[in-house]
Amino acid sequence: MQVSFIPGPSQLYFTLEDHMRQAMRTQVGSLSHRSKEFESIFAEVSSGLKQLLSIPSDFHIFFTGSATEIWERSVQNLVDMNSFHFVNGAFSRRYYEIALQLSKQAVKAEVPAGKGFADEVSIPSGMEMIAVTHNETSTGVSLPLDFIHSLREKNKEAIIVVDAVSSLPYPKLDFTKIDSVFFSVQKGFGLPAGLGVWIVNDRCMAKADQLLTRGISIGTYHSLPTLLANQKKNQTPETPNVLAIYLLSKVVQDMLRVGIDKIRQDTEYKAAILYHALESHPDLSPFVQEKQFQSKTVIVADCKEYVGPVTQRLLQHNLFPGDGYGEFKKTQLRFANFPTHSREQFELLVDVLGEVGDR
Amino acid sequence: MQVSFIPGPSQLYFTLEDHMRQAMRTQVGSLSHRSKEFESIFAEVSSGLKQLLSIPSDFHIFFTGSATEIWERSVQNLVDMNSFHFVNGAFSRRYYEIALQLSKQAVKAEVPAGKGFADEVSIPSGMEMIAVTHNETSTGVSLPLDFIHSLREKNKEAIIVVDAVSSLPYPKLDFTKIDSVFFSVQKGFGLPAGLGVWIVNDRCMAKADQLLTRGISIGTYHSLPTLLANQKKNQTPETPNVLAIYLLSKVVQDMLRVGIDKIRQDTEYKAAILYHALESHPDLSPFVQEKQFQSKTVIVADCKEYVGPVTQRLLQHNLFPGDGYGEFKKTQLRFANFPTHSREQFELLVDVLGEVGDR
Repeated sequence: MQVSFIPGPSQLYFTLEDHMRQAMRTQVGSLSHRSKEFESIFAEVSSGLKQLLSIPSDFHIFFTGSATEIWERSVQNLVDMNSFHFVNGAFSRRYYEIALQLSKQAVKAEVPAGKGFADEVSIPSGMEMIAVTHNETSTGVSLPLDFIHSLREKNKEAIIVVDAVSSLPYPKLDFTKIDSVFFSVQKGFGLPAGLGVWIVNDRCMAKADQLLTRGISIGTYHSLPTLLANQKKNQTPETPNVLAIYLLSKVVQDMLRVGIDKIRQDTEYKAAILYHALESHPDLSPFVQEKQFQSKTVIVADCKEYVGPVTQRLLQHNLFPGDGYGEFKKTQLRFANFPTHSREQFELLVDVLGEVGDR
Repeated sequence: MQVSFIPGPSQLYFTLEDHMRQAMRTQVGSLSHRSKEFESIFAEVSSGLKQLLSIPSDFHIFFTGSATEIWERSVQNLVDMNSFHFVNGAFSRRYYEIALQLSKQAVKAEVPAGKGFADEVSIPSGMEMIAVTHNETSTGVSLPLDFIHSLREKNKEAIIVVDAVSSLPYPKLDFTKIDSVFFSVQKGFGLPAGLGVWIVNDRCMAKADQLLTRGISIGTYHSLPTLLANQKKNQTPETPNVLAIYLLSKVVQDMLRVGIDKIRQDTEYKAAILYHALESHPDLSPFVQEKQFQSKTVIVADCKEYVGPVTQRLLQHNLFPGDGYGEFKKTQLRFANFPTHSREQFELLVDVLGEVGDR
């Protein structure tokens, strides 16, 4: 069997194909988004996600076309003037650039690729939103949850938004310390791409309402107040990707059956054996050197001139690595470690990487 | 077999399930949107749509999350101050309202539900965009193509945008008389919902560039210049609904094999027999009385107090009508007449409607 470790769109969740067959049998593909059946799928996925990720009841769950859309919508709805961005790779930089494109006075703290942030980052006062990318898909840097959770203490007025696109459902977020988090379904949840999931609390709602009252444009059909008005009916403003919402509801139920603790333990086990293999390898090494910043969900191998032979050997075993991102395309490989990847698949991956070193 | 006549999300195209199976077999669900395979799917769907709809080569085809998104993006990218909207139902009104929400000075010409526009609508000069809804899904009113094509003559400066959400691929648009047209895939193309298709010419591109140069916000990842820059590589700015783009490419190929002329002839035949049945029925009648405005693709039956018994009889034959829209929910039924609906299915529909009258 072919296994893709590309960090997104990535290997489908192992139950996905069955759910797709069932969806076709039961005509989910032509289900009206104003029907009772859709409302019950919407309710199920919301309550399932809340249970899986321990999301408190005062948070709301909305659907968009992509996580890229949420970058834009979050700035539109949560920022009048100033936003602050932790930038340490291509995706966190894109979030910052989107704020600039929307004419905000966006401020960034930036570190080089492969690095995280020291504790003493000073955030100017008066920032309305602090955007932090939990897991930089481009470099395999993950910011420690303690770091993210500590932001609130010194920035009480700011709305804290976490981009967890390529890490959820793994991180155990403390929702009392953040105001919003979002992801897209084609990473850790193993769905086909085409759906973003945006989780916000009432502070976000109040901020959007305040901007609207002051006559500031917060968008139209996907503004937070419009999303909420529809969500209260278990509906969406537009005709959404009904099929993806259905598939997400099914995968979330499957994950609840496996148990989030087991998913987290498996993730840590698989990450540990892969980092160990890279650290003890004669030719390869982890790109992210500082342990505290090593992502558990996107593991980047610095392969230098061995990218070719390593890739070749992996493909012989039907294992598909992800290319390095951008400037690192020719020297790195990226390995997604998502819930769909089994311990056995990672053990095989590690064995094959070991073989490459035996010359 | 169950047949849905709900005008969207509607009955899947009759080949869709096979394409979905093939997509699952070939792992389209985890295909990278930066891969060569994706680029070739993108190229295929673009050239296929251009061939099917006779779109000239100077038009560009972009993908969004929904047609609702295109309402917003078109106003953002094509209007600084003034837009003009033909409003004759819930969906054309929504387009107008979105322009207002984006702080534009939107002007409308409005007629009651079930009506079209007389030739003498006067459009104020200086309108940057004229928005016209070819087919009002809520009421079954379709504006004659001659009317749409005549707008250019008297409004040479305006960009003419056609909402053809629930009519394409049926209408034979003259692309020399319009600047943009859009649709969503869950109507005439018979796909699961979750993809909008936005077709624009270089006048639209120039207008967006001009707004951008003047420092006006035209959005971020889905601004026209960003969409074009990616489209040139057969890519999209964000991770899109790859699966839907693949399915669309397959359905378009199927439609090319059937032939657009045959699709149009079948559409007209099916519409003719259903309107005839409604006109000659003792209890039912077409809601749209003026022949020139009777939609070929969404046919609305005024059923008065007979909605219940008619629906019941149809369901006995596994035929699912669409509810009337909004205030007409209790007195009307809507019937989609899309390429997936066969002549035989419409003949059965007409027979069953006939039975209801025999008391």
